[in-house]
Amino acid sequence: MVNSKDEQALLRSVGKRLRKRREALGLSRQAVAEAAGLNYDYLGSVERGERNVAIINLARLAQVLDCDVGELLDGVSL
Amino acid sequence: MVNSKDEQALLRSVGKRLRKRREALGLSRQAVAEAAGLNYDYLGSVERGERNVAIINLARLAQVLDCDVGELLDGVSL
Repeated sequence: MVNSKDEQALLRSVGKRLRKRREALGLSRQAVAEAAGLNYDYLGSVERGERNVAIINLARLAQVLDCDVGELLDGVSL
Repeated sequence: MVNSKDEQALLRSVGKRLRKRREALGLSRQAVAEAAGLNYDYLGSVERGERNVAIINLARLAQVLDCDVGELLDGVSL
């Protein structure tokens, strides 16, 4: 449930961080989705900030992106 | 969807961090739940590691607990 513009902005910020980290590692969306056990289209929607992604999927993505969840979300706040 | 013991351990770790931070601030579960717009019982289940909590609820809790999400999840990984 996304209630506010702040929350939408937060999801977009998380998505951008994920994409930036993936691209910095030179990994394709397909490769990351497969390694994390996630659907390719789902990962696309996460990267676009369209999903209120849950902690386990964030942790799976962080693992594939070789960082911890805290690093991935450093500075993220409402 | 929690698939593994590692993922269950991750949820418990996140829940413990939330509870520890709340208690360090001397806040009741009721006070934090209300301020974050969450149900009291829901927060209890999050603190016990029973919920695959999504990023917006984590950000709401971090806001009430006066930290950012990255701080809250520092070092969390699968």
